[in-house]
Amino acid sequence: MSGQSNRPLVGIVMGSRSDWETMQHAAQKLEALGVPHEVRVVSAHRTPDVLFEYSATAAQRGLRAIIAGAGGAAHLPGMLAAKTAVPVLGVPVQSKALNGLDSLLSIVQMPAGIPVATFAIGQAGASNAALFAAAMLASDHADIATALDAFRKRQTDEVAQNDDPRK
Amino acid sequence: MSGQSNRPLVGIVMGSRSDWETMQHAAQKLEALGVPHEVRVVSAHRTPDVLFEYSATAAQRGLRAIIAGAGGAAHLPGMLAAKTAVPVLGVPVQSKALNGLDSLLSIVQMPAGIPVATFAIGQAGASNAALFAAAMLASDHADIATALDAFRKRQTDEVAQNDDPRK
Amino acid sequence: MSGQSNRPLVGIVMGSRSDWETMQHAAQKLEALGVPHEVRVVSAHRTPDVLFEYSATAAQRGLRAIIAGAGGAAHLPGMLAAKTAVPVLGVPVQSKALNGLDSLLSIVQMPAGIPVATFAIGQAGASNAALFAAAMLASDHADIATALDAFRKRQTDEVAQNDDPRK
Amino acid sequence: MSGQSNRPLVGIVMGSRSDWETMQHAAQKLEALGVPHEVRVVSAHRTPDVLFEYSATAAQRGLRAIIAGAGGAAHLPGMLAAKTAVPVLGVPVQSKALNGLDSLLSIVQMPAGIPVATFAIGQAGASNAALFAAAMLASDHADIATALDAFRKRQTDEVAQNDDPRK
Amino acid sequence: MSGQSNRPLVGIVMGSRSDWETMQHAAQKLEALGVPHEVRVVSAHRTPDVLFEYSATAAQRGLRAIIAGAGGAAHLPGMLAAKTAVPVLGVPVQSKALNGLDSLLSIVQMPAGIPVATFAIGQAGASNAALFAAAMLASDHADIATALDAFRKRQTDEVAQNDDPRK
Amino acid sequence: MSGQSNRPLVGIVMGSRSDWETMQHAAQKLEALGVPHEVRVVSAHRTPDVLFEYSATAAQRGLRAIIAGAGGAAHLPGMLAAKTAVPVLGVPVQSKALNGLDSLLSIVQMPAGIPVATFAIGQAGASNAALFAAAMLASDHADIATALDAFRKRQTDEVAQNDDPRK
Amino acid sequence: MSGQSNRPLVGIVMGSRSDWETMQHAAQKLEALGVPHEVRVVSAHRTPDVLFEYSATAAQRGLRAIIAGAGGAAHLPGMLAAKTAVPVLGVPVQSKALNGLDSLLSIVQMPAGIPVATFAIGQAGASNAALFAAAMLASDHADIATALDAFRKRQTDEVAQNDDPRK
Amino acid sequence: MSGQSNRPLVGIVMGSRSDWETMQHAAQKLEALGVPHEVRVVSAHRTPDVLFEYSATAAQRGLRAIIAGAGGAAHLPGMLAAKTAVPVLGVPVQSKALNGLDSLLSIVQMPAGIPVATFAIGQAGASNAALFAAAMLASDHADIATALDAFRKRQTDEVAQNDDPRK
Repeated sequence: MSGQSNRPLVGIVMGSRSDWETMQHAAQKLEALGVPHEVRVVSAHRTPDVLFEYSATAAQRGLRAIIAGAGGAAHLPGMLAAKTAVPVLGVPVQSKALNGLDSLLSIVQMPAGIPVATFAIGQAGASNAALFAAAMLASDHADIATALDAFRKRQTDEVAQNDDPRK
Repeated sequence: MSGQSNRPLVGIVMGSRSDWETMQHAAQKLEALGVPHEVRVVSAHRTPDVLFEYSATAAQRGLRAIIAGAGGAAHLPGMLAAKTAVPVLGVPVQSKALNGLDSLLSIVQMPAGIPVATFAIGQAGASNAALFAAAMLASDHADIATALDAFRKRQTDEVAQNDDPRK
Repeated sequence: MSGQSNRPLVGIVMGSRSDWETMQHAAQKLEALGVPHEVRVVSAHRTPDVLFEYSATAAQRGLRAIIAGAGGAAHLPGMLAAKTAVPVLGVPVQSKALNGLDSLLSIVQMPAGIPVATFAIGQAGASNAALFAAAMLASDHADIATALDAFRKRQTDEVAQNDDPRK
Repeated sequence: MSGQSNRPLVGIVMGSRSDWETMQHAAQKLEALGVPHEVRVVSAHRTPDVLFEYSATAAQRGLRAIIAGAGGAAHLPGMLAAKTAVPVLGVPVQSKALNGLDSLLSIVQMPAGIPVATFAIGQAGASNAALFAAAMLASDHADIATALDAFRKRQTDEVAQNDDPRK
Repeated sequence: MSGQSNRPLVGIVMGSRSDWETMQHAAQKLEALGVPHEVRVVSAHRTPDVLFEYSATAAQRGLRAIIAGAGGAAHLPGMLAAKTAVPVLGVPVQSKALNGLDSLLSIVQMPAGIPVATFAIGQAGASNAALFAAAMLASDHADIATALDAFRKRQTDEVAQNDDPRK
Repeated sequence: MSGQSNRPLVGIVMGSRSDWETMQHAAQKLEALGVPHEVRVVSAHRTPDVLFEYSATAAQRGLRAIIAGAGGAAHLPGMLAAKTAVPVLGVPVQSKALNGLDSLLSIVQMPAGIPVATFAIGQAGASNAALFAAAMLASDHADIATALDAFRKRQTDEVAQNDDPRK
Repeated sequence: MSGQSNRPLVGIVMGSRSDWETMQHAAQKLEALGVPHEVRVVSAHRTPDVLFEYSATAAQRGLRAIIAGAGGAAHLPGMLAAKTAVPVLGVPVQSKALNGLDSLLSIVQMPAGIPVATFAIGQAGASNAALFAAAMLASDHADIATALDAFRKRQTDEVAQNDDPRK
Repeated sequence: MSGQSNRPLVGIVMGSRSDWETMQHAAQKLEALGVPHEVRVVSAHRTPDVLFEYSATAAQRGLRAIIAGAGGAAHLPGMLAAKTAVPVLGVPVQSKALNGLDSLLSIVQMPAGIPVATFAIGQAGASNAALFAAAMLASDHADIATALDAFRKRQTDEVAQNDDPRK
């Protein structure tokens, strides 16, 4: 992911290594759409200074969006958003006891003033955060726009052409 | 909001006139940040054809984001997103019986493939959707970037300079 | 399912192939009661135009009811109902993280004006939607009425005659 | 509501007089659409014999649908459905402590074998149950079909023609 | 369980054979405490007449309590209570999608006028309903009182004498 | 409430004076049915020794049932039950933030071994706990049995004779 | 609150001025128990740097506990705890839409490694956080220990001496 | 754990032997940090007298904190707190049907006057209660302070040095 032309446009961060099982779906979608990105474990609670550093430098490093996944009392997306104006996309990771309802509410119920764009709990949310980031970038990255259009067309065709569930 | 230079960049749509009480907070924030926008009532269930027309033409009309507010079985944001690649920002309007938990889940739990960026239930979510739209536009609209930065600084200063709650 | 006399009276649609595990129980019940029906995968989000076409032509194709199953942010039943006056019966499919509570609220909490008749989460709901469709048809299809009566009698007898749970 | 030609086609029943505040919206919609109907308070718990009598005779009295509203541990719709094959439409009345979540789950989570078509909590659900009953009757009552079509068109027009929420 | 002296004092009923896995814990506790009892499957929805017959004759058959287990839209306990003044003890059976929260609310949220004593979801609730029935009978059945006292003492001793969880 | 013949058979206790608004409905029902009773504020958390004393002496003081109301982390019913074999009837008082869902779960989810019979949240639960206590006593108190029968008949008649909600 | 001997031992912080309505109950309790304390508005999202500064210097400034109140996506307590080993006591402030359930889960569901001691939603939680802080300090502050003992005794006496709710 | 110098400073108690699977994580953390502690099964409901004895003597036995884990209607932490001013730390054990939401609410929603510091559901909560107890003791136990600091530093370093989730 190095090189001038491939400087990451999207950062994927997650609160714990165990979140990778969910967040890899964001990475795969960005990869498939040709969106340069980076991947990091950054814990709001265990490495707060790294979090602040990461977020405070996001704009100057060229990031156009940060996708942040976390579970339970999921403070990572909101705290990233507190330190940067770069759009933050939050992915609630499914938690053990409460199935991600705690993660969802901890991410989506931000007070007025600092927004976090929130997506579905788990793998679907990780995929969609990546698609959303691509859609944001599409306005000034023609290749991403093309790739995204192709993805959506293919997705529509696949459903339309396989519409008998018994086969 | 007419004129070449003021062509709307953001569309605010809502499922019912009664949602305006919530969604006006999105309009006010866009207004304050100088983001050209339009406002419409479009009901997924009562005017589905208008919804499809609105969404299918959003890109060619120059919209860069659609902020959609709805309550209860809130299908508006997801169905807009189904018909356009323009980023859709969903605002769950607080419902009468279930306080917006139904609105939130109906908007945020989108399946993989079609993303909706979701914000908090009610007024805070409407404000934040507008701030998020501004942040998206900031990368190629210097005036919006400046206005957003100023807003965030002012917001920080106001809290920092009034930090004694007893006064 | 072709032929004048077997023209489908009920359409079973679902948002994803994976919903078939649940929705096959609707098909089996209709089959057992002799109700002509068709089965299709139609995604509200990935094939919105197919959805509108399906729904807008339902009445003229002779459908008397549409059974629609979907999970998560389940918009399929409500959007079908938005485009037709043919009664729509919604089945919330059990979702991974929230066990179908999201599916249920997304389907049942429709605003006044466009109704969706909602049934239980999962397999029981799929079966009952089929039984309900049969009951609707029974008023002018004597054979379905007879089959439904027989089913209900048999069901009652089976419980009554096997009322010792230890055997 | 008497006379051969006006024999009730739909019965509206509710568990308590206090449910009338909600259920009157069903009556008003049926009235507006010209659907002959009757209205009764029948309590599953306080008048179980009346409930059984009401339900067991529903078909022979010509009822084509029963709309049943109840709150809390709402057993009325399910028990009506247990005693008749006439379609039962359940309306969860908003309860004091749990806002109708208890009413909703008590009505919608019926086991396989005995269906109850469930609608939204409160007034919206009552209106929609009436609209659904009208849609069921539309197939062999041309006047109801016409009235329902007119209602839906008017509803669509009203939203479309008043789509500026600021006016 | 026949014979004058062993005429059942407690009836255990459940809505489905599958509830036996839960309700057998009630039977075992009654057995252990020497409380004569009977066991039946009675479905509120599939055998409503049997339910009414069972409940209406409970007092004259000598039943002093009815333990009723059911899941989902659990109407059995409340409808038994509607037809008899014999105390009804409700056990919410754990349901598949909603883990028994639906069963619990359907049983416990009875309106004023017809009480159902409700116990915990699942096996613990079944055991406790049996213990509660025994406590009710203890006032005029000395042998049950003795057995119950012995059970409680043993239970206390077992915890007190094994209070090191690492052994 | 003094005198040999009027020795209290039922104790009503509550965790706080503010619970009286709810629990007075239990007292009124017992009063109306002629059940001798006493009323006390006993706090599990603020007067634990009084609680233990009250419960440990309940049987010898002639109490046949204890009705206990509490809100929030409602430990009163369960801790009373821990210290006596006299049946304990729990009433979840509606709490401010969570509407009594916390009270309900704190009371009903007792582990196997120590039962608490739980009733609905709030006033309905208080009334029903009193009716249940009366039903328990009816087997050896003919006057209470008579009063209870009369109450139930009157209640049924009132619904049956006023079954038009529009009057 | 100045002077060597009155250096604050406890810091009360809250995310917004509007939280003061809740958090003043913590201040009042500390005041009543003679615990030196300070009060500040510190927003995790709007003044993240102030938060870090406040927390990072808490130990050296002599704070022995921090009581932090916040609502919605309540990140303040957890982020304070991330930057200090001084014990953090979290108070979920009741939120508008979800009644503080979001606040509670955002605070209490911290991942292993960084603890936040959580108290009840709203005013009760604020009071109890203060009492808990006093109990922590009691081991090496005899005057606080004495005041806390007196408070608890008085509290017990007040309930015990006013145990008739009808007076 | 015997001997003058190793007199337990923290007591770990749990309502049932089955809670050990969760609570051992508290014991392991205390062990690792060198905090002398004891472990006991004490049931609020089955051994209430042991609970009172344990709690009433906690202070004089030198305990500085009690960590109490329980599931379902979890009364143990609150009742311990009712009998001692020693700080009580509550750990909601994940329950079978409701995943620990019942345990959480039963512990955290204490009324004003008697505080219980509550931690996350399950293993994370057990670990964090131990870390919190250590933090409380750190102010006058230099060795614990040192061990806790080292633990936090190590924890931070481990995340920071392994921040690529793909390795």
